[in-house]
Amino acid sequence: MEYSVGIIGVTGYTGQELLRILRRHPSVSIGYLASRRLSKPEPVGKLLPEFRADRKLLIEPYDPSKIAGRCDLVFLALPHGEAMKLAPILLKKSGLSVIDLSGDFRIKDKTVFRKAYGFAQSDAQGLKSSAYGLTELFRESIRNARLIANPGCYPTASLLALAPLAQQKLLPAEGVIIDAKSGVSGAGRSAKDDLQFCEVNEDMRAYKVGTHQHTPEMEQALGWISKKKTTLTFTPHLVPLNRGMYVTAYVPLAKKISFAAVSELYNSFYDDEPFVRILPEGVWPQVKTVAGTNDCEIGLYLDPSGKRLTVLSAIDNLGKGASGQAVQNMNLLFGLPETTGIRIGHEGQ
Amino acid sequence: MEYSVGIIGVTGYTGQELLRILRRHPSVSIGYLASRRLSKPEPVGKLLPEFRADRKLLIEPYDPSKIAGRCDLVFLALPHGEAMKLAPILLKKSGLSVIDLSGDFRIKDKTVFRKAYGFAQSDAQGLKSSAYGLTELFRESIRNARLIANPGCYPTASLLALAPLAQQKLLPAEGVIIDAKSGVSGAGRSAKDDLQFCEVNEDMRAYKVGTHQHTPEMEQALGWISKKKTTLTFTPHLVPLNRGMYVTAYVPLAKKISFAAVSELYNSFYDDEPFVRILPEGVWPQVKTVAGTNDCEIGLYLDPSGKRLTVLSAIDNLGKGASGQAVQNMNLLFGLPETTGIRIGHEGQ
Amino acid sequence: MEYSVGIIGVTGYTGQELLRILRRHPSVSIGYLASRRLSKPEPVGKLLPEFRADRKLLIEPYDPSKIAGRCDLVFLALPHGEAMKLAPILLKKSGLSVIDLSGDFRIKDKTVFRKAYGFAQSDAQGLKSSAYGLTELFRESIRNARLIANPGCYPTASLLALAPLAQQKLLPAEGVIIDAKSGVSGAGRSAKDDLQFCEVNEDMRAYKVGTHQHTPEMEQALGWISKKKTTLTFTPHLVPLNRGMYVTAYVPLAKKISFAAVSELYNSFYDDEPFVRILPEGVWPQVKTVAGTNDCEIGLYLDPSGKRLTVLSAIDNLGKGASGQAVQNMNLLFGLPETTGIRIGHEGQ
Amino acid sequence: MEYSVGIIGVTGYTGQELLRILRRHPSVSIGYLASRRLSKPEPVGKLLPEFRADRKLLIEPYDPSKIAGRCDLVFLALPHGEAMKLAPILLKKSGLSVIDLSGDFRIKDKTVFRKAYGFAQSDAQGLKSSAYGLTELFRESIRNARLIANPGCYPTASLLALAPLAQQKLLPAEGVIIDAKSGVSGAGRSAKDDLQFCEVNEDMRAYKVGTHQHTPEMEQALGWISKKKTTLTFTPHLVPLNRGMYVTAYVPLAKKISFAAVSELYNSFYDDEPFVRILPEGVWPQVKTVAGTNDCEIGLYLDPSGKRLTVLSAIDNLGKGASGQAVQNMNLLFGLPETTGIRIGHEGQ
Repeated sequence: MEYSVGIIGVTGYTGQELLRILRRHPSVSIGYLASRRLSKPEPVGKLLPEFRADRKLLIEPYDPSKIAGRCDLVFLALPHGEAMKLAPILLKKSGLSVIDLSGDFRIKDKTVFRKAYGFAQSDAQGLKSSAYGLTELFRESIRNARLIANPGCYPTASLLALAPLAQQKLLPAEGVIIDAKSGVSGAGRSAKDDLQFCEVNEDMRAYKVGTHQHTPEMEQALGWISKKKTTLTFTPHLVPLNRGMYVTAYVPLAKKISFAAVSELYNSFYDDEPFVRILPEGVWPQVKTVAGTNDCEIGLYLDPSGKRLTVLSAIDNLGKGASGQAVQNMNLLFGLPETTGIRIGHEGQ
Repeated sequence: MEYSVGIIGVTGYTGQELLRILRRHPSVSIGYLASRRLSKPEPVGKLLPEFRADRKLLIEPYDPSKIAGRCDLVFLALPHGEAMKLAPILLKKSGLSVIDLSGDFRIKDKTVFRKAYGFAQSDAQGLKSSAYGLTELFRESIRNARLIANPGCYPTASLLALAPLAQQKLLPAEGVIIDAKSGVSGAGRSAKDDLQFCEVNEDMRAYKVGTHQHTPEMEQALGWISKKKTTLTFTPHLVPLNRGMYVTAYVPLAKKISFAAVSELYNSFYDDEPFVRILPEGVWPQVKTVAGTNDCEIGLYLDPSGKRLTVLSAIDNLGKGASGQAVQNMNLLFGLPETTGIRIGHEGQ
Repeated sequence: MEYSVGIIGVTGYTGQELLRILRRHPSVSIGYLASRRLSKPEPVGKLLPEFRADRKLLIEPYDPSKIAGRCDLVFLALPHGEAMKLAPILLKKSGLSVIDLSGDFRIKDKTVFRKAYGFAQSDAQGLKSSAYGLTELFRESIRNARLIANPGCYPTASLLALAPLAQQKLLPAEGVIIDAKSGVSGAGRSAKDDLQFCEVNEDMRAYKVGTHQHTPEMEQALGWISKKKTTLTFTPHLVPLNRGMYVTAYVPLAKKISFAAVSELYNSFYDDEPFVRILPEGVWPQVKTVAGTNDCEIGLYLDPSGKRLTVLSAIDNLGKGASGQAVQNMNLLFGLPETTGIRIGHEGQ
Repeated sequence: MEYSVGIIGVTGYTGQELLRILRRHPSVSIGYLASRRLSKPEPVGKLLPEFRADRKLLIEPYDPSKIAGRCDLVFLALPHGEAMKLAPILLKKSGLSVIDLSGDFRIKDKTVFRKAYGFAQSDAQGLKSSAYGLTELFRESIRNARLIANPGCYPTASLLALAPLAQQKLLPAEGVIIDAKSGVSGAGRSAKDDLQFCEVNEDMRAYKVGTHQHTPEMEQALGWISKKKTTLTFTPHLVPLNRGMYVTAYVPLAKKISFAAVSELYNSFYDDEPFVRILPEGVWPQVKTVAGTNDCEIGLYLDPSGKRLTVLSAIDNLGKGASGQAVQNMNLLFGLPETTGIRIGHEGQ
């Protein structure tokens, strides 16, 4: 137990998943759990029945003055718009790092942010100093930051699928399509009429077509990688399962290529990455192979013309798409092996 | 189209199911649809996407003065506690009948009601004049009433399972157990934290153990049939499916009996009933055989001692357990064949 | 009951759905139900518990000599490769029409067929004389045929989404993408390891990427409409629900267009069609609004460039995607209003 | 890695769950994985996609001669009737222990066994020497055995619920009812018509009413604890979720008792047990609080008469109901803390 960490907003789905992962992490202890809904401390199992077995941990009302001295790092698992208020206060405490799982620090351009989220980004200093936390793609800047903007779930699955193409200038400026399907936990925990069980079960639907706030987040990151502007067509869909995300990306390649070449490109790009798995030809990702993990599976289909590539990727929206990646970033900040506590099985520990 | 009917509270699950059934009912037209949440009329498809194909029907703000002259009968599909306020006003209109799908008029004893629902039954006149609408068991009193208390879903499935025993004095005064499992639509439509998709999917749980308000409703009806007091042990469970209810009732018989005799008892009791189906020995009810219908399936298992009977019954909680039975009662009030509009297929129409 | 019809292969999902629809159809009676798995007649409810309420209907062993005189029309709901053996025999009986729900007669080019299905199309006469049964698009040829090749579920949802563009020469020769998501009943009823409940529930996956047999079926029909060759990129996905299909089609338009123009195009194209519903701007199809119906919902999103159109469509894969459309075709052959028995509610009957 | 273990039948659900647990177990390595369906070794991820991340482990064709020297203990995760053939051969190897997850060695009386399973128990020596592996109840005999009959899932949930009553002579000789609900993985992996996704999803049903083979297993164990014969009424139900089991047991108590006394009885009985959790009054077990764990949650309801107790218990049918408990038994045999590798979180490791 070398480090102590806190979670603010532990009762939401990403907060709960952080707690699930961190409780078995061999190098951290839980120093602070907070929910802004509480007026007095409560046993974790009372608010989150999944943790009834734990009789010691408490969730406390949020109080920033309590964090100093108790935590080396704090995860913010709050609704959009809240972290930009808390982060500046927390970062004044020396030695404290912050990993934010909301969208508050993901988009660098304030005009784009306001259009995407409908309100202003008010913490200019945080925005400037924060690193975008898609670990495999921006590892160096993450390592040197104290404030990490943990990526959205759709951007994580999509950017891992497209990054090798972007880096190799194979991604066209427009015409790339991302058709994405998400399990329901991606929509968060607060009660909503259209996410009640009977409204989702046996249904399937697109939503926010052409307007989802993750579109500019993806376009920004692709621009960083490819050094040019990319415009995406992105359609998210809701499907009736708890955890899991499936992205099917369609790319009209900037130039003709062979399957062997594209396969080699992806395999070498992710060769040393423990959490990204390129599947053999003709094998496709499945949600169930990544559910509960920090893994991303990627499958490739090149059509006979050699000009159209379909990239399929699957993640757990609460794993690599949120809390798993947040812990991967924490490991990076602490100088631990990135797999610590999130690679299940002997080989990773 | 001989009759015109209205639905107040059409946006809830039972209201919506009433509309689904009544739209294809050959002898009624829809004269009035109301939701108390509205401030101006809206097309039905805007509030209930399932009815988008219907471009004519409107849902109106609730206004009792609009009902006179437009409806022969009104269904109240409102939360508990509301019908007792509306029914007295509606029943003042001559020629208008009311079928209430809430619990307001089901329990005749006001002390028992207050304990079960947590508030007082305030309409003594309605309570006195209303009939308990379990059609197969109380047909004559329903036919002569203007206010029908449509039964709860658990009582419908349980009472159909136990009535033949109660009538034959085979039901003991105590020791009868009702273990019931319900789909999620039984809990209603309003957004609740613990009925969000991810909270119900892949879960299963008992709730209101020993305290559910349907227990006294069932005990009261069994008392009417058997002419003696019966105390039940009732445990409801929530299971992850939209529609369907399964009751497994365990009866220590008042006297030993053969399977042939108990089978004959059930078959003759329900011989002329189009909606109750006694299954052959060794065949068990399934939710999927009754989903979307007004049917009830009953299976029987007598243990080798001849003294312990297990009665299994399945209904659709929104069908025979609510809106289907409400239409069956409407048919009875209008003097139509009971199967009109609710028996699918040639034989019933 | 003006007509008598039969179903061969009634125990599969499409056969069962045909029976469900036809039992309440006001103008047909069931003259013959057959399953090749039977050696003697059995009550329908024994093989299909959903029909336990029906105590009269029998399913018989398949015997073509029994059909003459008992049926005006026969539906074939059999695995691919079987109808091409049965249809020639059945069509020898004068006055008998055949609607085939398999893929056997859908693809006119025998080389393409063999590549798609892995075996030869052996009934040249049937192939030549059959009409492709996508009712809204090929109504006249259906009306004049005795053998109807009922379309696949993916082609139905996709072609209804793309036909207005194809007709107006707005569809490019290549670059059109169809990302499709299907409920599980589309895969048929026979037990398969990877369709067991625990293998599908909480999972999501693409399959047959780039190789699905419905691709040439769609390309062929688009060619008939647009009078030019079209190459599609088609990716089918399996999602955990029983019934429903969602198609998200991405079209790089052959020329720039306004949303008003494309909306007007779709609305006028389907103006008189009772089963196709164009949704207003910003409203998206849902599986639950079409489940259990013969409807198709279509939504449109045009990106700000005016050059990229996303067309979203939803159907019930067993409804408009199979058995519902088969009955629509039957109505057409019999000269009945197309909505007979498949438009629920007063307006359609 | 002090010990090496093998799994025979690793491709079924219990075998796969054993592998999932053992891969992260800190004190064992995987020495042997076999499937009788194989003719040559295959990477684990090819047969079990959930383990694609593991590139080293192989599943081999079953060959008992390969086990000697490679394993200290072997788990048998095979269909009923197979372990009784393999166990005698495996136990001849000195130092090798066997934990069997089938029903082969659970019932000591051969006549009862034959009636329950429909075939004879042929390994008299194994039957005699084996211990019944419900760890909390029979720890001493397990510790001293080389062959463990791991209990069924229903018996595990039911016996943990009833054991305190049985030990205190509060359980009557008859009249105890066990109403049980199981997720679908309990039925095993091999493809079955009635366990296809569409046959189970949105359905619920009882099965094997009065005839399930777990009834005599439970009655036998209750007899061992209470030293008298107990006859149970047991009804299993199938519900649409992957993992989880819920038991609602109804007990007419042999004598009147207070809630405080019964609560004290359960709490003291399980006081030192890390995997059994007695919930406070008015709190009920949930499947989701035990899914993926080796835990059992127990809730208690005593009716106002003080004579009727409802005991509710929840387990994961693949966890404490099968593979989790098998690993708990392995820990016991190896002299490791029982929680090793199966208690998630810091406190248990």
